[in-house]
Amino acid sequence: MKIQERPTPTPTRVEGAQPLRWQRRHVLDTDDWSRAEIEAVLETTGAMLDILRRPIRRAPPLRGKTVILFFAEASTRTRVSFELAAKTLSADVVNITASGSSVEKGETLYDTVRTLEALGGDIVVMRHASSGAPYFVAERTGAAVINAGDGWHAHPTQGLLDAYTLRAALGDLAGKRVVIVGDVLHSRVARSDINTLVPLGAEITLSGPPTLIPFAWRHGALPRGVTYEPDLDRALDGADAAIALRLQKERQESGLLPSVREYARVWGLSEQRVRRMKPSAPVMHPGPMNEGVEIDAAVAHGARSLVEKQVTNGVAVRMALLYLLVGTPSLEVA
Amino acid sequence: MKIQERPTPTPTRVEGAQPLRWQRRHVLDTDDWSRAEIEAVLETTGAMLDILRRPIRRAPPLRGKTVILFFAEASTRTRVSFELAAKTLSADVVNITASGSSVEKGETLYDTVRTLEALGGDIVVMRHASSGAPYFVAERTGAAVINAGDGWHAHPTQGLLDAYTLRAALGDLAGKRVVIVGDVLHSRVARSDINTLVPLGAEITLSGPPTLIPFAWRHGALPRGVTYEPDLDRALDGADAAIALRLQKERQESGLLPSVREYARVWGLSEQRVRRMKPSAPVMHPGPMNEGVEIDAAVAHGARSLVEKQVTNGVAVRMALLYLLVGTPSLEVA
Amino acid sequence: MKIQERPTPTPTRVEGAQPLRWQRRHVLDTDDWSRAEIEAVLETTGAMLDILRRPIRRAPPLRGKTVILFFAEASTRTRVSFELAAKTLSADVVNITASGSSVEKGETLYDTVRTLEALGGDIVVMRHASSGAPYFVAERTGAAVINAGDGWHAHPTQGLLDAYTLRAALGDLAGKRVVIVGDVLHSRVARSDINTLVPLGAEITLSGPPTLIPFAWRHGALPRGVTYEPDLDRALDGADAAIALRLQKERQESGLLPSVREYARVWGLSEQRVRRMKPSAPVMHPGPMNEGVEIDAAVAHGARSLVEKQVTNGVAVRMALLYLLVGTPSLEVA
Repeated sequence: MKIQERPTPTPTRVEGAQPLRWQRRHVLDTDDWSRAEIEAVLETTGAMLDILRRPIRRAPPLRGKTVILFFAEASTRTRVSFELAAKTLSADVVNITASGSSVEKGETLYDTVRTLEALGGDIVVMRHASSGAPYFVAERTGAAVINAGDGWHAHPTQGLLDAYTLRAALGDLAGKRVVIVGDVLHSRVARSDINTLVPLGAEITLSGPPTLIPFAWRHGALPRGVTYEPDLDRALDGADAAIALRLQKERQESGLLPSVREYARVWGLSEQRVRRMKPSAPVMHPGPMNEGVEIDAAVAHGARSLVEKQVTNGVAVRMALLYLLVGTPSLEVA
Repeated sequence: MKIQERPTPTPTRVEGAQPLRWQRRHVLDTDDWSRAEIEAVLETTGAMLDILRRPIRRAPPLRGKTVILFFAEASTRTRVSFELAAKTLSADVVNITASGSSVEKGETLYDTVRTLEALGGDIVVMRHASSGAPYFVAERTGAAVINAGDGWHAHPTQGLLDAYTLRAALGDLAGKRVVIVGDVLHSRVARSDINTLVPLGAEITLSGPPTLIPFAWRHGALPRGVTYEPDLDRALDGADAAIALRLQKERQESGLLPSVREYARVWGLSEQRVRRMKPSAPVMHPGPMNEGVEIDAAVAHGARSLVEKQVTNGVAVRMALLYLLVGTPSLEVA
Repeated sequence: MKIQERPTPTPTRVEGAQPLRWQRRHVLDTDDWSRAEIEAVLETTGAMLDILRRPIRRAPPLRGKTVILFFAEASTRTRVSFELAAKTLSADVVNITASGSSVEKGETLYDTVRTLEALGGDIVVMRHASSGAPYFVAERTGAAVINAGDGWHAHPTQGLLDAYTLRAALGDLAGKRVVIVGDVLHSRVARSDINTLVPLGAEITLSGPPTLIPFAWRHGALPRGVTYEPDLDRALDGADAAIALRLQKERQESGLLPSVREYARVWGLSEQRVRRMKPSAPVMHPGPMNEGVEIDAAVAHGARSLVEKQVTNGVAVRMALLYLLVGTPSLEVA
């Protein structure tokens, strides 16, 4: 990539920023990432958090670059996180949503993306209801593509921010046991958490209603580092951390769940239940939360909750990725 | 009258900017503001108008700060006014609307706001259909909160911009009589105008259909400095200024009004009627106007109209508040 | 800010930028433009493409200026093109769409525009379903107005970008024959292409179903430089270039077309058909494309296609117009 070819204008490198090691053009999924790549992002994330703590939160490495936020599915939280990440690094940001876009006018995804590139987009951040859509796009554009969530498939920046947040709380993740509870079947978050946490040494225990666990997984064909424990209390016993997944309301309508109330009773993270974990073992949630369903308000806002840290770290992780993909090396104060 | 055409901003501090006096963390309502606080905002507004008259309308005091415009109710005018105010002061601006936001996904307002803060929002400007929502938020976030209109309750920046506009037109407001006409009952503008104009010495005469005046007020329990005159012609006789309130079309459907045509005849500001006021007494409207209903086109665009000045001053008032809440002192040319 | 403090701003004027010649306050239609005016825009467009090729795509001539994108009809492509053009020249950009705007609240277009000006808009870029709306606005505002498409009337920036693109491909357009095929009747693009290409010397051959050609034109009362050939194959024979127009799906419902399949067979640009033109004669389309209807995918993405160049040139043409209307002369690197 162009950036790496330039002789480094050194005065300004922040410790932790690792542009030279970085090779990938896109962030589509972390399922084939090496531990070293994950570490490089986490290290760079730390450097980005330093920028976010400055009195003037602004750095120049994406100045004159254009980041296109192409959200074919609505997501305020993720979209704003990327938008602030890009603006903090001085990029120009353009928002495109599905409604009112040429997507509605019947244009193919291929044409939309060729257009975004021709318009001058350096990075396309995309969320799409179809699993795999970012791959399709990445193969057909010169812009860098970041997957901000595609169908049930992957949400790599969520996996990376969860890894950063857990490491900040627990230190080295080697041998740490992390429970992921809820609708694993439809959860790109669960998949991306596994892909990021396992290479860092964590052991994952999945729990949740059998109807919401992938068929092969609940019958033993689990990924490396992952187990399934249908009894949530047992899963939580002595665990180092828990991640509650968002319950999509429409699952109930589809007959995969008895009722929301029943779900909350059996699978919700209550105060009583999280006490089964190690003392002060943290609790996370990708948001937005259905309080009283998959997580009780007291847990969501209690001492164990890392929910807000996840949000803050999310901005820093996205800054790190934007920087690694297209940034210039300088992180000096703009 | 006195839009201070001051000699020249010395490179850094503009006369009129008063950060040292300023103590409040939020702008929720002006009902408990001192006259000195109101004066501080108006004075700073004058300094901001100077910036808006520069060939390059740009100053740095919010550089690296993030302003989140959280409009759970649509309002182009107010949203754009805040957006331009923030950008003129070099802030990063992120727009969040209710549709497509996590609000729609059932997230609590509390969680939304904690998220906005965790994302790095320094100021949350919010419009919300529920009276009091900004108070709820302000108690639960480290960000500064500006109320951009909450239910029927308050619209403090409208009150401040109306005060600035009236003072620029009339000079000292002591003893000046200002008529506010229309749907006072549902009007946060009326309430905020009263809260700002009365401390500056103005006397308010309310007029409008009895069904659209708060019950207690039409029975004599009026705030200090406010009277109710059910006959609009009598209210206007010799008045120093008039403010027409927007008529929400849905009031008619609810049976509070006979018909829009009848409303216009009895309560609309026609050319003939405004002549009852003092010569050249100005007319204002918070916009958007229903021309031919609460105000005739000839009045809306006539010599007495301050409607466009209100819009311009609105940007400056919002700049002043952003500056007082989180700005750094320097107002030099960016 | 940093930029102005730099000692260097001498190499500031880019060759090709022509501010001194420029007289117009608005860009409403090109129907009354001189060839010299068109040339001035095309020349300036070349200078803007140079900026877009810089490693840091950013220049300061609209710093502190506000560009309001007022799209009362949805159009992602054109809106984003203007947004990126404005941001590349350092303008502040505010997006206003019809939904959720005061337009929906019944405000008149006149009041909306007076408000946009009072808010501080230097340029209003507007798309509107009503032919002539930008004229109405331009007469009533001090801001510069750019028509981004009004009804069936005009889309001047499309005409200019098509002219730039064709000239870059073909050189001097004198005597070059350009086929425009499709729904000419409802096409503001066709009208604007004619208004721009004919003054540059091109000869236009229109083709398309008689029901979709203006009545007078299909009966011989054609504009200077334009002919109508109802047989597309004959129109294409030996042509220098072809422009396919977008087919609005609703035309079929209105009975002006037999069926989309039939339309594609008779009027679609297939690979076989475009071979009737001169060797390597280019094909253009304003986008978004209905692939398989007015243009085959193989043509849309084949060697003759200039579709992506049109998009890139569109950003540069819009930069040129923003610059000519309100820019300061300096084009140095920001």
